[in-house]
Amino acid sequence: MEQQQIKKIGIFKCGNIGTSPLLELLIDELADRKDIKVRTVTSGSKMGAEDVEESLPKIFEFNPDLLILTSPNTALPGPAKVRETISSSGKPGVVVTDAPGKRVKAELEKQGLGYIIITGDPLIGARKEFLDPTEMAVFNSNISKVLAITGVYRMVQQEIDKVIYALEAGQSPILPKLVIDLNTIRDNSVFSNPYARAKAMAAYGLAEKVAEINTQACFIEKESEKYIPLVACAHEIAQIAARLAEEAREIEKYNDTLMRKPHAKDGKSKTKTKLMAPPTLDGESS
Amino acid sequence: MEQQQIKKIGIFKCGNIGTSPLLELLIDELADRKDIKVRTVTSGSKMGAEDVEESLPKIFEFNPDLLILTSPNTALPGPAKVRETISSSGKPGVVVTDAPGKRVKAELEKQGLGYIIITGDPLIGARKEFLDPTEMAVFNSNISKVLAITGVYRMVQQEIDKVIYALEAGQSPILPKLVIDLNTIRDNSVFSNPYARAKAMAAYGLAEKVAEINTQACFIEKESEKYIPLVACAHEIAQIAARLAEEAREIEKYNDTLMRKPHAKDGKSKTKTKLMAPPTLDGESS
Amino acid sequence: MEQQQIKKIGIFKCGNIGTSPLLELLIDELADRKDIKVRTVTSGSKMGAEDVEESLPKIFEFNPDLLILTSPNTALPGPAKVRETISSSGKPGVVVTDAPGKRVKAELEKQGLGYIIITGDPLIGARKEFLDPTEMAVFNSNISKVLAITGVYRMVQQEIDKVIYALEAGQSPILPKLVIDLNTIRDNSVFSNPYARAKAMAAYGLAEKVAEINTQACFIEKESEKYIPLVACAHEIAQIAARLAEEAREIEKYNDTLMRKPHAKDGKSKTKTKLMAPPTLDGESS
Amino acid sequence: MEQQQIKKIGIFKCGNIGTSPLLELLIDELADRKDIKVRTVTSGSKMGAEDVEESLPKIFEFNPDLLILTSPNTALPGPAKVRETISSSGKPGVVVTDAPGKRVKAELEKQGLGYIIITGDPLIGARKEFLDPTEMAVFNSNISKVLAITGVYRMVQQEIDKVIYALEAGQSPILPKLVIDLNTIRDNSVFSNPYARAKAMAAYGLAEKVAEINTQACFIEKESEKYIPLVACAHEIAQIAARLAEEAREIEKYNDTLMRKPHAKDGKSKTKTKLMAPPTLDGESS
Amino acid sequence: MEQQQIKKIGIFKCGNIGTSPLLELLIDELADRKDIKVRTVTSGSKMGAEDVEESLPKIFEFNPDLLILTSPNTALPGPAKVRETISSSGKPGVVVTDAPGKRVKAELEKQGLGYIIITGDPLIGARKEFLDPTEMAVFNSNISKVLAITGVYRMVQQEIDKVIYALEAGQSPILPKLVIDLNTIRDNSVFSNPYARAKAMAAYGLAEKVAEINTQACFIEKESEKYIPLVACAHEIAQIAARLAEEAREIEKYNDTLMRKPHAKDGKSKTKTKLMAPPTLDGESS
Amino acid sequence: MEQQQIKKIGIFKCGNIGTSPLLELLIDELADRKDIKVRTVTSGSKMGAEDVEESLPKIFEFNPDLLILTSPNTALPGPAKVRETISSSGKPGVVVTDAPGKRVKAELEKQGLGYIIITGDPLIGARKEFLDPTEMAVFNSNISKVLAITGVYRMVQQEIDKVIYALEAGQSPILPKLVIDLNTIRDNSVFSNPYARAKAMAAYGLAEKVAEINTQACFIEKESEKYIPLVACAHEIAQIAARLAEEAREIEKYNDTLMRKPHAKDGKSKTKTKLMAPPTLDGESS
Repeated sequence: MEQQQIKKIGIFKCGNIGTSPLLELLIDELADRKDIKVRTVTSGSKMGAEDVEESLPKIFEFNPDLLILTSPNTALPGPAKVRETISSSGKPGVVVTDAPGKRVKAELEKQGLGYIIITGDPLIGARKEFLDPTEMAVFNSNISKVLAITGVYRMVQQEIDKVIYALEAGQSPILPKLVIDLNTIRDNSVFSNPYARAKAMAAYGLAEKVAEINTQACFIEKESEKYIPLVACAHEIAQIAARLAEEAREIEKYNDTLMRKPHAKDGKSKTKTKLMAPPTLDGESS
Repeated sequence: MEQQQIKKIGIFKCGNIGTSPLLELLIDELADRKDIKVRTVTSGSKMGAEDVEESLPKIFEFNPDLLILTSPNTALPGPAKVRETISSSGKPGVVVTDAPGKRVKAELEKQGLGYIIITGDPLIGARKEFLDPTEMAVFNSNISKVLAITGVYRMVQQEIDKVIYALEAGQSPILPKLVIDLNTIRDNSVFSNPYARAKAMAAYGLAEKVAEINTQACFIEKESEKYIPLVACAHEIAQIAARLAEEAREIEKYNDTLMRKPHAKDGKSKTKTKLMAPPTLDGESS
Repeated sequence: MEQQQIKKIGIFKCGNIGTSPLLELLIDELADRKDIKVRTVTSGSKMGAEDVEESLPKIFEFNPDLLILTSPNTALPGPAKVRETISSSGKPGVVVTDAPGKRVKAELEKQGLGYIIITGDPLIGARKEFLDPTEMAVFNSNISKVLAITGVYRMVQQEIDKVIYALEAGQSPILPKLVIDLNTIRDNSVFSNPYARAKAMAAYGLAEKVAEINTQACFIEKESEKYIPLVACAHEIAQIAARLAEEAREIEKYNDTLMRKPHAKDGKSKTKTKLMAPPTLDGESS
Repeated sequence: MEQQQIKKIGIFKCGNIGTSPLLELLIDELADRKDIKVRTVTSGSKMGAEDVEESLPKIFEFNPDLLILTSPNTALPGPAKVRETISSSGKPGVVVTDAPGKRVKAELEKQGLGYIIITGDPLIGARKEFLDPTEMAVFNSNISKVLAITGVYRMVQQEIDKVIYALEAGQSPILPKLVIDLNTIRDNSVFSNPYARAKAMAAYGLAEKVAEINTQACFIEKESEKYIPLVACAHEIAQIAARLAEEAREIEKYNDTLMRKPHAKDGKSKTKTKLMAPPTLDGESS
Repeated sequence: MEQQQIKKIGIFKCGNIGTSPLLELLIDELADRKDIKVRTVTSGSKMGAEDVEESLPKIFEFNPDLLILTSPNTALPGPAKVRETISSSGKPGVVVTDAPGKRVKAELEKQGLGYIIITGDPLIGARKEFLDPTEMAVFNSNISKVLAITGVYRMVQQEIDKVIYALEAGQSPILPKLVIDLNTIRDNSVFSNPYARAKAMAAYGLAEKVAEINTQACFIEKESEKYIPLVACAHEIAQIAARLAEEAREIEKYNDTLMRKPHAKDGKSKTKTKLMAPPTLDGESS
Repeated sequence: MEQQQIKKIGIFKCGNIGTSPLLELLIDELADRKDIKVRTVTSGSKMGAEDVEESLPKIFEFNPDLLILTSPNTALPGPAKVRETISSSGKPGVVVTDAPGKRVKAELEKQGLGYIIITGDPLIGARKEFLDPTEMAVFNSNISKVLAITGVYRMVQQEIDKVIYALEAGQSPILPKLVIDLNTIRDNSVFSNPYARAKAMAAYGLAEKVAEINTQACFIEKESEKYIPLVACAHEIAQIAARLAEEAREIEKYNDTLMRKPHAKDGKSKTKTKLMAPPTLDGESS
């Protein structure tokens, strides 16, 4: 592959959702793709307008072929600023965000941005009596497991790959317009056992419930006697959602039907199911 | 707090270890610290010298007061380049890395860099027959849970906070020189129940075993019949290590003795144990 | 206690919710209360108007002092008929029902009926490809465990007992007007460990999610490819909700703080916590 | 189906066993059978002769085509009275009861009654220091899960259905004479995996052990130091029996071989195994 | 301690029960008791008369001060021969055996032998279609865990120690006459949490059930279709009994109340509960 | 089979490893092999030179055809004495021992002894503040389950059987020279599901980690604050290793592919997989 064909993916993160921390790794999990480079800039957990203003320009300095924004609530001033900037840059851009993003879908479309809205990527229980760095990390671990196993990460990765493939082919990419909800998990996950799928759906449904309860706990309840039990409850649900997702994956392992879809070195998608067998390029007969 | 007192933390990540994805979130988990700003630049999963050369300058452009590098095997050319650059910048720098870092401790000291070497942050099972984006994320979820619950993340965060506090006080910071191994977990974790501590230690010991097995699988075995079972075995250990860590945390919850240490808005550390009680500033009588 | 003081409780059940099957047992769990008699008449799983018309009169023939109706969706013609009949009988009546009951609260109040509306007593996955007698019983078992452990059954029983005590005292009873939702569990359950409470709340939240998903599956989706995964998913959530509730109860057992509130022979409430200790009458110093 | 063909099933319950609460639901789980109506009358948890005398006549007033009694220890005066009354009514009657029923088998046969005696439907731990409404409900939940999953509920339902089918065909029904013990579970459950069957049998064996221990605790031991640990022990066995039964069912789900046998609208039995497939009428080739 | 004070314990094992394999280790778990020597001779899994005749003399050649026989069903010719020989040797002897031993209690007393009969040390599922070396070992592992955690091993060890202490004091030992059944576990186990005790009792009750089922499977059923499911069922119960026992022990660990009773070097008993504290000699104030 | 063909196996045990307690049972699990007799002599948990000197001669008095020594650390004086004596006896001998045995492999070969060195048969946490008879037994139970399920016991048994078969055939046996490490489990276990194998390997890897940690705890750390947490940690790993091994076995049960290899009465090996099928002689077509 010639140097000029290598596409550069610029990811900007402000604030954090469950899909953020591993996003750049999902599209180059073995660090051996020859067709892309990924660069990320983040403003940490903060997502204020001034944080964005200071840090966003750096990602453009990498001269990326594709821009991806990931943040919670993309309607807030910080992420809104990012969206505007990407939109006006003329470069293809995709916004990966959580449920409140549904409220700005029209705006996203007007801005010409692709979007992936994940209803099961929930708000954390952000209350000072409850959330310390350890609790934050445990919560992220649980949600990450749910999003990985239910296929959400795969869907995000595949949507981004589709844009990359189009760019590589010199085509104008069709940007994703995707809301990932419970029905999406039902219709797009790749479990061979139907109960594994049902358990994965259940895990995703639980993640949606986490979002609902944490929203009440963080934005509505005012007294600690009211909101502490709610955030604690929501994080218990996150924990059990992770276990349920894990159980779904175990079923596939028990049957040696766990589908794996690694990237080939040229960035194409390969597929395999039996653990001891090699992956084959998608589209090939195996 | 006046603007000039705000310290800027620049984090550079190349490649990925279990401590990488959440690092910037650990030091500002509620996104409300007034005393610091965090900016991160990464070269994605790739950590080659050319990746570093292109992306590293950006983090310096933020003019950080403190630089943090996180990467696997800090002896490799990419991370080595980062270390040299930070060292010669004259700014305080801390390297957060995995077990192979032990082999360059003398060099790190000569470079004047602080370091935190985490023996239980294991190499992933990076074999194409096994590792796809989903498996990668599930592994990260498991290791992240182990590192969070055993207190590793807290130790990393506290070491970074110590440097920040010194900078805020206008002092020359004493940089960390810390190898976190099983004995460190034993001596520095904050479990009130001794069996919870023993289970957390066990989880950490398992993570060390993962590293040992994946190293054999990734660098020594040549045939897929040999290395596939090994990476699969290592990831099973990672999974059960996460469950064991979770069990340790549950014990503290069962006794309502789970210690939480959130950041105050001014960046100081607060502590609480009973779930329904408020946190108090460390050093205060509660 | 003299014969004339014995109050007769007439329970009419049409259709089934999770609170129905054990309702009469909850108010006389040891079958030794001297102050009440309980008689139940049901029209089985069917709840049509004609079923009600045939069977409802029998419960009145027992000449009950208090009438209780339990049914799903109390707005449907069958249960509506029961409500009217009880209302016009002049006898005190209480309706125990599920979430759709919230829509007829005003009507219930106008009818002078007490009500207990349980948002976490979910619709079953009533699809012929999925629900057979065994699946139905397994679901009921799971929901029953959730409702028992989260304290819902206790709240229902205590509300009924309050009415009975008033009747026994010759007073005009104040009938319950209670919607049991997640906040009710938070505020009225009797766990001594706050994480046990959080887990119980989580279990209840899951039961609410079951209701939401089964409603979509039973009333909105038309194709079996769409609704089978949804009902299967909902029943998986019911199963894990039962486990989570069980875990909440285990925490109290682990600490020997499980509160028990058996009825005395005269119908009064007793309380105990340590397993090996005797219960004492509420209000007494123990 | 013409109105005159609809058969009416009258169920009388006095006291409670694990098979009682859901009995009427088992034979019309979707509430859509066109061939039967079910009416139930119960005397609550009490089963004294006077309770029976007052409430039993009501069930006859429904003019049922088939009478079913469910109660514990059918030799006690209350249930004995019910048996006599049904026997002398000339209507077909079936007694569903627990292990002590074995001692009156000869009498049952002489009375011309069918019977289903379930050795694994155990006595509850009815001691006032232990049993409150919540504990009662949790125990019922556990036993109900065991009886459902091991196939006991299905056997009961099928026996009743056989009688109904005979009545519908205008034949004189052959009433069941069935003792359901561990060997029955072995020989009549419908697991496709032999270890699932073994686990289900184990769950049933545990339920038998519960009966044995609770009998000692309730009728032999006199001191609370002796009987409290025994009833607590028995309920622990019930809990783990439910988990074991659940595990048996999970095996079938893991293999997508879980057999489901819903009622068709005309009351006939349908069967299916693969979750996503439709049920087919028994006897048809699928 | 002088050499002549060292007592020699001779253990003869023929056949195997759950208490056999670790018996000699229980009385010198750290291999540092200065007051005793233990020698064991076994005839392997075989326990025929000729096996005993060949191997039993060897244990006498060690000139033991105390003789212990452990075997299944002590009424069989082989073990009976051992009992006679020990009895006529004039040396103190103790028989450790399983439930069938209850039938020869009178004979044991006449022979002047001490005995410990363990009703929860069950027959293995000895059917060739089922039992291979691995299954045998897994079963032993499960039963061993039950007997250890429920306190049976401790009771056996303490009874033997009592005899040893008497011999050391130059007294004529009072030999144990002990049947360990469910009530013994209730009255003599050392759990501080009453639910831990209840779970341990439950585990022991399950082991008794294993014995009951395996006896039917090994001696009554003749067809493999009948006995294979029974032995498989019994071993499932053994497995879950081990988990239940483990859970009982975990409760004590969760509360840091797990009692430990190591031997001092002089053979005396020490006791401790808090994990981090040292053991103290029994009888001392700690 | 004629009497002179019966081979006598003499087993000498000094001290204890996880493979010791069940060793004689593994080669005659149903006690019905007609081709061998097994006799065992042990010096209990003690393994000093004087213990060996007193007890070792007895095993020779049985005039065995094959001698097996099992002990920890075969380089210590006691086991070394046993090795010398067997070596100079001219009889075939096999040493079954733990990881330290690797250091004397050359010596073992010079002595003409066969050996099986098991790296996953770990040192126990032999610290007086931790190890009492119950803890010792629980640890043995856990390790025994790991060694059984991972196939270690089967490998040991098959190696011994090979020697026996050679002796029976009048051939000079080729003695085993086997180090069982993680790769051996990978290459020689008999799981049909590759994830079951991976979990079994993981369990074995954990047992190796137990050895590593207990060695540090027992021989290096001097203060109880340092070594108690380590031995407690190691035993937690042993516990979870047993659960992981159990899970591996469950997978095979879930798929009805669990291989069983019982001995025929003539000592030959039979094999079966489906639970309800009979075993067939190895080498026969089934």
